[in-house]
Amino acid sequence: MNIKIGDKISYRKTFTQDEVNAYAKASMDENPVHYDIKYARKTFFKKPIVQGLFTASILGGLLGSKLPGHGTILLGTNFKFINPVFVGEFISATIEVICIRNDKQIVTFHCFIIKEDSSIAIEGEAVVMYKGEVFI
Amino acid sequence: MNIKIGDKISYRKTFTQDEVNAYAKASMDENPVHYDIKYARKTFFKKPIVQGLFTASILGGLLGSKLPGHGTILLGTNFKFINPVFVGEFISATIEVICIRNDKQIVTFHCFIIKEDSSIAIEGEAVVMYKGEVFI
Repeated sequence: MNIKIGDKISYRKTFTQDEVNAYAKASMDENPVHYDIKYARKTFFKKPIVQGLFTASILGGLLGSKLPGHGTILLGTNFKFINPVFVGEFISATIEVICIRNDKQIVTFHCFIIKEDSSIAIEGEAVVMYKGEVFI
Repeated sequence: MNIKIGDKISYRKTFTQDEVNAYAKASMDENPVHYDIKYARKTFFKKPIVQGLFTASILGGLLGSKLPGHGTILLGTNFKFINPVFVGEFISATIEVICIRNDKQIVTFHCFIIKEDSSIAIEGEAVVMYKGEVFI
């Protein structure tokens, strides 16, 4: 594997209300706190928030598209959801290689997502298998 | 909390290609194995597969919409991705209460998703805080 400990990549993104609505429908995660501004205003969050696992989706995107990239098989994730992400907020997701098992081609990543105010939204680990793009 | 150990709920769903394409774009998880039939045919999977964290999204949906329901705050997830889920495949997701900390209103769920062939797609735990729908 052409991957070494310390390799990392980041990606900035904002989730739009349209994306959150489509995810709400597909995932059945239709809590009004995700899309109803009047409802959200009455809650602790004050503004619509992105579904936690949807926020985490860009960590999966980085793994599957960038590092290691196509051919990545996700084996496990362990995420803590520390602060909510608001619809329209710019966040920065980072994955960094922290462990490599060359014998089994298994790589562990430290994953985190930082909010606009520099607090942590999500933090955890992901374990993947990567044998490159294997065609049969 | 009106929740007890052993409470559980299930939901059956199939992910459509349109849903997978929209998620691929939003999450940047644009590996062609998720949407390109010709590419997928050459891989180990043979058919397009749903992104792992997108499959897990219905576990988040059950927590946020059904049990405990609106007002649920996701604190953590720990998922193992055991077998792939194909686009168009019927899967069954289940969450079951396995631990309750009434002092902190924290509930732990055993989560699993079963494939059409009865094998496990995803298995793990989710921890949530639930104080009901708290309005301020």
